[in-house]
Amino acid sequence: MILNDTIVALATPSGAGAIAVIRVSGPQAIEIVAPLFISKTNKNLREQATHTLHLGNIVDGARIIDEVLVSIFHGPKSYTGEHTIEISCHGSQFIQQEIIQLLIRKGSRSAEAGEFTLRAFLNGKMDLSQAEAVADLISSENAASHQIAMQQMRGGFSNEIQKLRQELLNFASLIELELDFAEEDVEFANRDEFQKLVTRIQQVLKKLIDSFAVGNVLKNGIPVAIVGEPNVGKSTLLNALLNEERAIVSDIAGTTRDSIEDEISIGGIGFRFIDTAGIRETQDVIEGLGIKKTFEKISQAQVVIYLISADKFNPDASGQNSEFQVEIAKIRNQFPQKPLLVIINKVDTLDSAAQEKLKKDLENISSGVESAQYLFLSAKTGLGVEEMQQKLLQFVNTGELRNNNTIVTNSRHYNALLSALEEINKVQQGLNDNLSGDLMAIDIRQALYHFGEITGEITNDDLLGNIFANFCIGK
Amino acid sequence: MILNDTIVALATPSGAGAIAVIRVSGPQAIEIVAPLFISKTNKNLREQATHTLHLGNIVDGARIIDEVLVSIFHGPKSYTGEHTIEISCHGSQFIQQEIIQLLIRKGSRSAEAGEFTLRAFLNGKMDLSQAEAVADLISSENAASHQIAMQQMRGGFSNEIQKLRQELLNFASLIELELDFAEEDVEFANRDEFQKLVTRIQQVLKKLIDSFAVGNVLKNGIPVAIVGEPNVGKSTLLNALLNEERAIVSDIAGTTRDSIEDEISIGGIGFRFIDTAGIRETQDVIEGLGIKKTFEKISQAQVVIYLISADKFNPDASGQNSEFQVEIAKIRNQFPQKPLLVIINKVDTLDSAAQEKLKKDLENISSGVESAQYLFLSAKTGLGVEEMQQKLLQFVNTGELRNNNTIVTNSRHYNALLSALEEINKVQQGLNDNLSGDLMAIDIRQALYHFGEITGEITNDDLLGNIFANFCIGK
Repeated sequence: MILNDTIVALATPSGAGAIAVIRVSGPQAIEIVAPLFISKTNKNLREQATHTLHLGNIVDGARIIDEVLVSIFHGPKSYTGEHTIEISCHGSQFIQQEIIQLLIRKGSRSAEAGEFTLRAFLNGKMDLSQAEAVADLISSENAASHQIAMQQMRGGFSNEIQKLRQELLNFASLIELELDFAEEDVEFANRDEFQKLVTRIQQVLKKLIDSFAVGNVLKNGIPVAIVGEPNVGKSTLLNALLNEERAIVSDIAGTTRDSIEDEISIGGIGFRFIDTAGIRETQDVIEGLGIKKTFEKISQAQVVIYLISADKFNPDASGQNSEFQVEIAKIRNQFPQKPLLVIINKVDTLDSAAQEKLKKDLENISSGVESAQYLFLSAKTGLGVEEMQQKLLQFVNTGELRNNNTIVTNSRHYNALLSALEEINKVQQGLNDNLSGDLMAIDIRQALYHFGEITGEITNDDLLGNIFANFCIGK
Repeated sequence: MILNDTIVALATPSGAGAIAVIRVSGPQAIEIVAPLFISKTNKNLREQATHTLHLGNIVDGARIIDEVLVSIFHGPKSYTGEHTIEISCHGSQFIQQEIIQLLIRKGSRSAEAGEFTLRAFLNGKMDLSQAEAVADLISSENAASHQIAMQQMRGGFSNEIQKLRQELLNFASLIELELDFAEEDVEFANRDEFQKLVTRIQQVLKKLIDSFAVGNVLKNGIPVAIVGEPNVGKSTLLNALLNEERAIVSDIAGTTRDSIEDEISIGGIGFRFIDTAGIRETQDVIEGLGIKKTFEKISQAQVVIYLISADKFNPDASGQNSEFQVEIAKIRNQFPQKPLLVIINKVDTLDSAAQEKLKKDLENISSGVESAQYLFLSAKTGLGVEEMQQKLLQFVNTGELRNNNTIVTNSRHYNALLSALEEINKVQQGLNDNLSGDLMAIDIRQALYHFGEITGEITNDDLLGNIFANFCIGK
């Protein structure tokens, strides 16, 4: 970890825009930028107060590269904790590159991914779980993942861990102190108090570990498998779901997506739609493989939507639609616990008499299919779309989110918490068995180690390398 | 033109990045942001000095949207001349939208394209040609277009126009004054001096008008037609040309392009490559149409590259390659004046004996083809690529650029300059014919009008609408 050089990177998204921001951080940041910046009022950048803004030109010798606005931050009062300059230039890619190349020629180094935040961590501006939350915050695409990342970045999670760690550390010290007085057989650490703490730690760890199931799904989006043939209106349905949210943001720049994406935010929760083919009875080997794949996808999903088109719903003489029933039954057999929502799309293509008949037919048929919900819908007219969104939200446990509980979303934290719990359970066992202090101290130290992994007291270059490689450059 | 409301827009490119900047400008900018911003040090934004930076949270009631850095600019000391707040937030698209929507709910309006710069113009922070240069600067992709836009933004062009306009205005006033004393037959305006000024204006206008031919091409890229079949190595050649520049910027974020683009910057000048099919002799109607299209493309180009593959160059027994000769001759017949560069690609596929023979063959053949230049090249090994770049640069008149002359690139300016020259020529005619002052004054006023169009003294809502519609939102 080299901290004595000065790094530079584009901090805003790549591409052309009104403005772009280039960030320079390190001991020489001000020294490197000052000679390249001609202030409009002849101010010397070296003499300016922290947290001030200055208009001027970035020059390369006699050549003016751009008229820019320079922000100056004196370490440690900056994001990284080092001297930092932010250059706000015109958003031409050519200008961005010219300025970055100039800064590199004058002694800066091109920053690695996440290196600004790594420096913030190394300089004690934030702990490791907070640094990780910065990346989560930037990639947050909906209210749920945003809330979780924001809470983690503000230290909600690490505060809880830090507090437990401190208490455990106190007991560890007392127990280790006992070892120094082994001959005297004293107990500095009150075993009842210690038992209470261990129980409390077990409870907190279990709660955090359990929250990962929710957190992981909220962070990555709830997987929803849509079973149905291409012509039943899958993409129109996704569009209809998407438009509900898009309407709000339509007049804001940069929010338009070129194509329908698989992830759609409903009520602030991300849903990841997984397209599957139908699962019709077949003798065909290739189609058989398709069915196998569909079942694989359904097994990964948390919710299954079975989509049929109203105009293709043709019950036979006995009022049964065997094909439809067979498919639903198959899904139910394979995944008896998975929430299943049957959507009859394109109801707008039927007149009211036909709709009535369809409802009757469905009632007859569905009596044979357990625990599936039915919904009439027209992706075209929007009928039933809101109801579908409400049903999808019902499948998600948002209680933890609503109550602003700490939610674990990071698998690294999850693994550390599991390891910590394992060690704490050993300590509990030791207490039950009246284990000697020296053996117990080892398990406690092990638990402390795993706590420290989360917040970054315990770390190594490989771990940091892995974590910050997932950041974007410029952060 | 409404200026009494407060506008908001994302100023950085859309998409996710380390940070994003949201700009708020207008009389209420500080009033709108202040209640939404909780400073880390409990500072009230309303009481902060201009050009200062503040760390804190953007909140919507009790909910924290993001930890941000706020820049504050008091009008008229801002880009727009109005109170301006810039919010530097984490670069998540979700956060960007949440903050913009919050600001809109609290009384801002979503900014139109270019509205910040329009306000800067209307508030007298820059003239119209400078405002137009801002858009050119943002879209500049190479050193040439950057230099021209930068010069124009710094007022090089409008200063020249302003100065002439002022001198002409003085004479106009004197001549109009004469009209008030018409009975007394006085001449306040010295006709010799006036003749000198008219001559000078004619010279300057002609020079500026002439520069448009260069300027337009430098701004939009030099069109180069590549004639050759797909398998002669066109895309490898473009790649090789592109890589020369890419190598420099390869380690900088955001500079990687996913596909080879048609515009390539060589020595700071943009070249726009136009792919064409071959022009072989054919009886086929469809292929005949293809040839017609190729000729159309060649006619639009400023330089023609004829690309052949060394391994397909097979002169017949007489040492002639008739097909090749016929094609070159056709291009020459059709476009006798157009620079033609014949490139023999894939020379790496030949051994040295074969290369020697090829050279001899070519000498024989080329003696019959006038004014074409020949170049041996291997796009694969890079042999000849630099020489090709040098040759391409020779076709461009960069003298004006090197001498830092004022270059007109904007067709609106070009048309206004043409109209101004037309009027000035009428004034000249009037002087020659000893035209009466009242008639001459009309032509002078007309010329002044066209000068004013360029700098924006003369304008209207339609014109401004057209100009700023080409800007990006947030500028």
